[in-house]
Amino acid sequence: MCAIVGIYGNNNAARLASVALFAMQHRGQEATGISSSCDGKIYTKKDRGLVSEVFTDDALKYLKGNMAIGHNRYSTAGGDSILDAQPVYAKYKLGEISIVHNGNLINKDEVRQDLIDKGAIFQTGMDTENLIHLIAKNTKDRLRDRIKEALTKTIGAYCFIVQSRAKQFVIRDRYGIRPLSLGKLKSGGYIVASETCAFDLVDAEFLRDIRPGEMLIFSENQEPESIQLFEPEYRPCAFEYVYFARPDSVIDGKSVYRAREDMGKVLAKNDENSHIKVDMVIPVPDSGVPAALGYAAQSGIPFELGIIRNHYIGRTFIEPTQEMRDLKVKMKLSPMKSLIAGKSLLVIDDSIVRGTTSKRIVKILKEAGAKEVHFRVASPEIKFPCYYGIDTPHKEELISNNMSKEEVCKYIEADSLEYLSVEDLVNAIGNDRNYALESFDGDYFVKE
Amino acid sequence: MCAIVGIYGNNNAARLASVALFAMQHRGQEATGISSSCDGKIYTKKDRGLVSEVFTDDALKYLKGNMAIGHNRYSTAGGDSILDAQPVYAKYKLGEISIVHNGNLINKDEVRQDLIDKGAIFQTGMDTENLIHLIAKNTKDRLRDRIKEALTKTIGAYCFIVQSRAKQFVIRDRYGIRPLSLGKLKSGGYIVASETCAFDLVDAEFLRDIRPGEMLIFSENQEPESIQLFEPEYRPCAFEYVYFARPDSVIDGKSVYRAREDMGKVLAKNDENSHIKVDMVIPVPDSGVPAALGYAAQSGIPFELGIIRNHYIGRTFIEPTQEMRDLKVKMKLSPMKSLIAGKSLLVIDDSIVRGTTSKRIVKILKEAGAKEVHFRVASPEIKFPCYYGIDTPHKEELISNNMSKEEVCKYIEADSLEYLSVEDLVNAIGNDRNYALESFDGDYFVKE
Amino acid sequence: MCAIVGIYGNNNAARLASVALFAMQHRGQEATGISSSCDGKIYTKKDRGLVSEVFTDDALKYLKGNMAIGHNRYSTAGGDSILDAQPVYAKYKLGEISIVHNGNLINKDEVRQDLIDKGAIFQTGMDTENLIHLIAKNTKDRLRDRIKEALTKTIGAYCFIVQSRAKQFVIRDRYGIRPLSLGKLKSGGYIVASETCAFDLVDAEFLRDIRPGEMLIFSENQEPESIQLFEPEYRPCAFEYVYFARPDSVIDGKSVYRAREDMGKVLAKNDENSHIKVDMVIPVPDSGVPAALGYAAQSGIPFELGIIRNHYIGRTFIEPTQEMRDLKVKMKLSPMKSLIAGKSLLVIDDSIVRGTTSKRIVKILKEAGAKEVHFRVASPEIKFPCYYGIDTPHKEELISNNMSKEEVCKYIEADSLEYLSVEDLVNAIGNDRNYALESFDGDYFVKE
Amino acid sequence: MCAIVGIYGNNNAARLASVALFAMQHRGQEATGISSSCDGKIYTKKDRGLVSEVFTDDALKYLKGNMAIGHNRYSTAGGDSILDAQPVYAKYKLGEISIVHNGNLINKDEVRQDLIDKGAIFQTGMDTENLIHLIAKNTKDRLRDRIKEALTKTIGAYCFIVQSRAKQFVIRDRYGIRPLSLGKLKSGGYIVASETCAFDLVDAEFLRDIRPGEMLIFSENQEPESIQLFEPEYRPCAFEYVYFARPDSVIDGKSVYRAREDMGKVLAKNDENSHIKVDMVIPVPDSGVPAALGYAAQSGIPFELGIIRNHYIGRTFIEPTQEMRDLKVKMKLSPMKSLIAGKSLLVIDDSIVRGTTSKRIVKILKEAGAKEVHFRVASPEIKFPCYYGIDTPHKEELISNNMSKEEVCKYIEADSLEYLSVEDLVNAIGNDRNYALESFDGDYFVKE
Repeated sequence: MCAIVGIYGNNNAARLASVALFAMQHRGQEATGISSSCDGKIYTKKDRGLVSEVFTDDALKYLKGNMAIGHNRYSTAGGDSILDAQPVYAKYKLGEISIVHNGNLINKDEVRQDLIDKGAIFQTGMDTENLIHLIAKNTKDRLRDRIKEALTKTIGAYCFIVQSRAKQFVIRDRYGIRPLSLGKLKSGGYIVASETCAFDLVDAEFLRDIRPGEMLIFSENQEPESIQLFEPEYRPCAFEYVYFARPDSVIDGKSVYRAREDMGKVLAKNDENSHIKVDMVIPVPDSGVPAALGYAAQSGIPFELGIIRNHYIGRTFIEPTQEMRDLKVKMKLSPMKSLIAGKSLLVIDDSIVRGTTSKRIVKILKEAGAKEVHFRVASPEIKFPCYYGIDTPHKEELISNNMSKEEVCKYIEADSLEYLSVEDLVNAIGNDRNYALESFDGDYFVKE
Repeated sequence: MCAIVGIYGNNNAARLASVALFAMQHRGQEATGISSSCDGKIYTKKDRGLVSEVFTDDALKYLKGNMAIGHNRYSTAGGDSILDAQPVYAKYKLGEISIVHNGNLINKDEVRQDLIDKGAIFQTGMDTENLIHLIAKNTKDRLRDRIKEALTKTIGAYCFIVQSRAKQFVIRDRYGIRPLSLGKLKSGGYIVASETCAFDLVDAEFLRDIRPGEMLIFSENQEPESIQLFEPEYRPCAFEYVYFARPDSVIDGKSVYRAREDMGKVLAKNDENSHIKVDMVIPVPDSGVPAALGYAAQSGIPFELGIIRNHYIGRTFIEPTQEMRDLKVKMKLSPMKSLIAGKSLLVIDDSIVRGTTSKRIVKILKEAGAKEVHFRVASPEIKFPCYYGIDTPHKEELISNNMSKEEVCKYIEADSLEYLSVEDLVNAIGNDRNYALESFDGDYFVKE
Repeated sequence: MCAIVGIYGNNNAARLASVALFAMQHRGQEATGISSSCDGKIYTKKDRGLVSEVFTDDALKYLKGNMAIGHNRYSTAGGDSILDAQPVYAKYKLGEISIVHNGNLINKDEVRQDLIDKGAIFQTGMDTENLIHLIAKNTKDRLRDRIKEALTKTIGAYCFIVQSRAKQFVIRDRYGIRPLSLGKLKSGGYIVASETCAFDLVDAEFLRDIRPGEMLIFSENQEPESIQLFEPEYRPCAFEYVYFARPDSVIDGKSVYRAREDMGKVLAKNDENSHIKVDMVIPVPDSGVPAALGYAAQSGIPFELGIIRNHYIGRTFIEPTQEMRDLKVKMKLSPMKSLIAGKSLLVIDDSIVRGTTSKRIVKILKEAGAKEVHFRVASPEIKFPCYYGIDTPHKEELISNNMSKEEVCKYIEADSLEYLSVEDLVNAIGNDRNYALESFDGDYFVKE
Repeated sequence: MCAIVGIYGNNNAARLASVALFAMQHRGQEATGISSSCDGKIYTKKDRGLVSEVFTDDALKYLKGNMAIGHNRYSTAGGDSILDAQPVYAKYKLGEISIVHNGNLINKDEVRQDLIDKGAIFQTGMDTENLIHLIAKNTKDRLRDRIKEALTKTIGAYCFIVQSRAKQFVIRDRYGIRPLSLGKLKSGGYIVASETCAFDLVDAEFLRDIRPGEMLIFSENQEPESIQLFEPEYRPCAFEYVYFARPDSVIDGKSVYRAREDMGKVLAKNDENSHIKVDMVIPVPDSGVPAALGYAAQSGIPFELGIIRNHYIGRTFIEPTQEMRDLKVKMKLSPMKSLIAGKSLLVIDDSIVRGTTSKRIVKILKEAGAKEVHFRVASPEIKFPCYYGIDTPHKEELISNNMSKEEVCKYIEADSLEYLSVEDLVNAIGNDRNYALESFDGDYFVKE
């Protein structure tokens, strides 16, 4: 997951980068960071916490200059995550450099081992560090050439922004797995960001997506220069549409919100000949809302907010006693008793990963008096881990790796359970292109 | 506004009270407090902040005993609000006492002046302090009699819970203006709370609403004792249904969510003969969602989430520069450009108070490309301040006090604007009873 | 304990009050507060924490006006100490009032009960609240007359500063038990403070001490007006000289530092014919330093810093495991091994209360290799609790109430132990007046 | 400056390391960190802040294993200091490694440039990173051999502790410039620490100092193995005795406290034939205390605490207004007016660097009424910056680089001023060995 942003050619670069990162906070809440560049020196500020906590006015004043790159880090297990925050900064032969990265390099261990064998040291667990080493070891005179050669050894799903003391290099892998878009700032200069939802907040106009395999170079007093590094083999990630992106983003020309509505519509169409009768369509908030709207629109069954999401959850609240079971999930998601008591519900969520949350949701709905709970999932069964930048759990923890649809239905105690087929999903997003679907079909197409 | 809760006869009293306050956090975020009672001593913990911040495990351990009362305070202006947090505790002739209050006493200044003239001192700005003084000055032997007499001098909208060292006295004013419900805890004992949404989280079964003019007394080893203090003249507050209560609460037998949906349906019916043509119905999140669902269901026009609400807003984020105007509203509410560009929208909110937020919302929608923005309000025009416990601004700041509907429409730059009539509102909630409607019709019916 | 301050007639009143409270932080670290007065309105800010934490620039801006009173609260047991922070503010018949208090009223329970019987309520545990009630119940027209009459019912050790909307009334009890001094600010106006160490920091010139039984009134455009309320019976507290005051303060004309040095000299004279031989005089830091200097000067035995005090102690540090015994005391006080190993030490502290700290100090010194540890105490044995404003423990916890000198010596495992006699103490401070010595001689001279 | 510690062979390794760092907090307050090693994996926790803030119980639980190294970082200028906290961790050819360092490598820029030229990247500003690179680039099979060869390219003042997954390598440079001592833990295993003051707190017995040029290796089930890497040319840093070390430490067999007392005695002897007459000897607290005691003992002039140090200084207190000049220094150091008014003072501090603090101290003493202020400095004039690990300012900022003794005396407005000569200093510490005295004599003896 994670979010990246680059701002080039604007005197408010770090401030705009922080606002863009704020808009993309949903892609990572653990840590955040920005590097700016000014007068040949790179300034970096990164820390644990939310964008609104880390980027105080003092921090933004320190980050001077008219170019900046930024990163939001997704929460992962580990001891002292501050060490794995981005941007990654280094001094090397050609000067100073700072890099942000969204994605996952599948050959990172081999590359790392090879570098280590040649005497390199690695100070973090981040694959971003690989790229810096490959750039530093190279002997070409120009950074662009070093980046090019470094990328020939770099296999995986990636979006990089490399900032030197005066330029920015934006790269998207040949498959375009992770999203990356280019915009023009009304206050001057350019923005590159993982999601277009960042553009509105900084008053930027969407220009186009970064092309698969493209390197875009920003230099002073010049138009952005585009170099096609690799032959494109376009396979954008379907999971961004299913779950990860913000609904108001447009990825590679397709509205995330519309795609989710369409997924719901397909679910409804699939149910047309089913014998089940439900009184209302209910989304799991907020993830299932657009698909539930689509289902309701298609089926004519009323859409109702049968589960209320509580946004006051703090990090430090009391541990419930044994007597207060189910308290934790109910503190976040409250079933609307008066609405659902005695009713048959069609509940929609975007995906089922481990199954534990779905099971709890069915439970609290039934305890609140629901007569029947029919569960619909606006994505196919997740049977395989993603190695292309989304933080899915190990294969063993994926419920659909271990159980059939019928077994999952029984496990979560739903009255029925339906998923989208992979074909359904592709049709809902748009069958005009291929997608990265490895979590659903196990096709790990990125080859070394 | 504010929320109150009482727990009686449960060994986890303070913990359950804190969970109930958590469920009612929407009624007040500035300060919170709980008093428990144990072995003839009252323990109080109150502080600025959210329930999840104030009630740490240490605080809950301190609050021992099998009865507790609690309060959430709504944000108001002023210097050191901690002094105005509730419960209000005092020692007096009959021992120790602690009180929580939701409502507003309209004769508070006269009562206070009279008490001051007789030598009393007031240490806070809260009208709750009046009641304690009236109880303390009284010479009856039993607390219940003192409370009764004190209430004869207390005019306004109120729900009180008075806790002595061994009992709790629950009182709702004769009009039943503010809501208050009684439930039975599955783990033993009773709960009284401003809203029923608190019951689910603590595993309580709804028994009934506290009756207008009723005093309910909880004592050890006894069934709750009900005394009808005043002749009921039932006038529950319509604003709770319009705006203030949580949608999953049921107030005096009516589902808040259903009432809001019905308000939206009436708006749709009123538009049936209108000449306007819109592409979609869009709620202002989260306040306008149920009414927008009702409007869409009634009209057949698609419901869409055209505005995304961002929940990561922190308290300390950067001040936008002059160049980033509208940033603050857009950081909270993001228009979904791809969905609404070129479309005619029907936007629904629950109310218009000052008009500034509505104006900004129309603006960002139009900037995002909306062709037309038709604004619908699921309540009548607010022309009068509320003196019955809801924190409306001064009369001069109420836009509908100063402008006609047409002028407001022009001010907020909408293409059309419609409200509910007062009669519409009453019909939507249910015309089987009278409501407190003073904000809409100026009928200040509470008389001294 | 506690500290109080009043600033009158200076536009920086609250700021100067905060600086004075900072200088008197040693008298109370639990909570702090300031009330200023401006245009007929009183502004109050009080909170838990140190002066430097509570009085931010925002807080000081809120506290406008050219007069202010302030208070530091000593740490005491209890649940929600913020409720017991001072100043105590109230509205009453003559307007607004705010009071700070240092001392203890010995008839507070009777007065409180009498007020409660007449219908008053008490919202805090502070005896300061008594005085406000007595003032409010009174029917005189002028505040000064109300204060006068209220004080006729007020028995104990006290220094009050009462601030109305335009005046300040400073009162010291007839015995002058607690210190209170008057100074003139170089930047204009007056300061009254518990200790003169506050004067230097705010650039004030010491004028005189407030007289026992005096009320000093500050009003606009007038010289301070002095009224002798009670016949003085001067008995300043000896404990201020022994332990509580800062060494750079001068109380009632006597330097605290010099008095402590003289106490040490008397200890040395008393030892002149003793048979013990020691290599060096070592203070328990920081409390025993001046007396140890006096002892060394008188005896000619070298003074050495044999114990180092660590000032980095935080509030949240790790709990030592069982294997690391004595860690906590050693983290605060480190014996200087290389200096004391094999040596006979004469260790001086200002007092022994429970004996536990003295025992630990002897232990760590012996473990560090000290051959002999002779303990000297620069005060008499504490056999009685203080009821005049110093927070001594209950009688049963005072080691000298339970044990003879010989028993204490054995308990703390010292090689010898000597105290000052009460007469010695009086001579060291100056035998030109009587002192409050109740902790040593049990003479509770304050009579109702 | 900075402090380092290593614990080997104790199940409480990280906890003991944190306690040792706590004892050495005076050597660095900006950041702190610990790496432990367990089952072939290195765990690291480092952050800004004091030891007592960073090492919570959770952090210590994370740091499992029976060996640990730790570091306190001295405050330096810069943006995001967390990146420069130690230990420095890396993965390299032989596995995982973590290093702490106290000192300064004078050829660090050349080594770094050479490494960069060969393709290395540097992610921090710390010279510690050099050593890791040198170790990683080496091709020897054993870590000890790699370290040896790396050190042949490493010139400067240094103490390193290198921790691999199962061993610790402790190295002190051939000059022994920075202190480093070895102790035996009573609870099992060994401790190595910058100062012996850490030993008492963790119940360790001092064994010996690490020898100049020695590498000491700790391995499982073995006695520590000592290898003499370099011919020793012993030159311990005199500044440790003058200013930096804690008085209760013993460095290379000499008590810091005794050395400081002796410096004061030499100052007194030098004054014996002077015509000045003073009433008392006053230390600048806490730095000048031991020397002032020595001066007083030698001269017979009374030692008095004429300046009180305030320990409540917080980080966030109010900025004084223009009217409150000198407030900041007086908030920290308060002159004892009643003691010094009208008196001639001999004031002793350990050193004069820029002269600004000394000037302010003379000023507040004179304002407090001192008749004469004679300033004595328990070290020679500091004319040269230290490049061997002490953070002195640039040459231009050193007052004695720019002014003669007479000019400094005039600048600080003292009535007389005397320093120790370099010879005096050497005699006071002990003329049985050579010292690193570069700050005083400019002899930068460490040669490449």
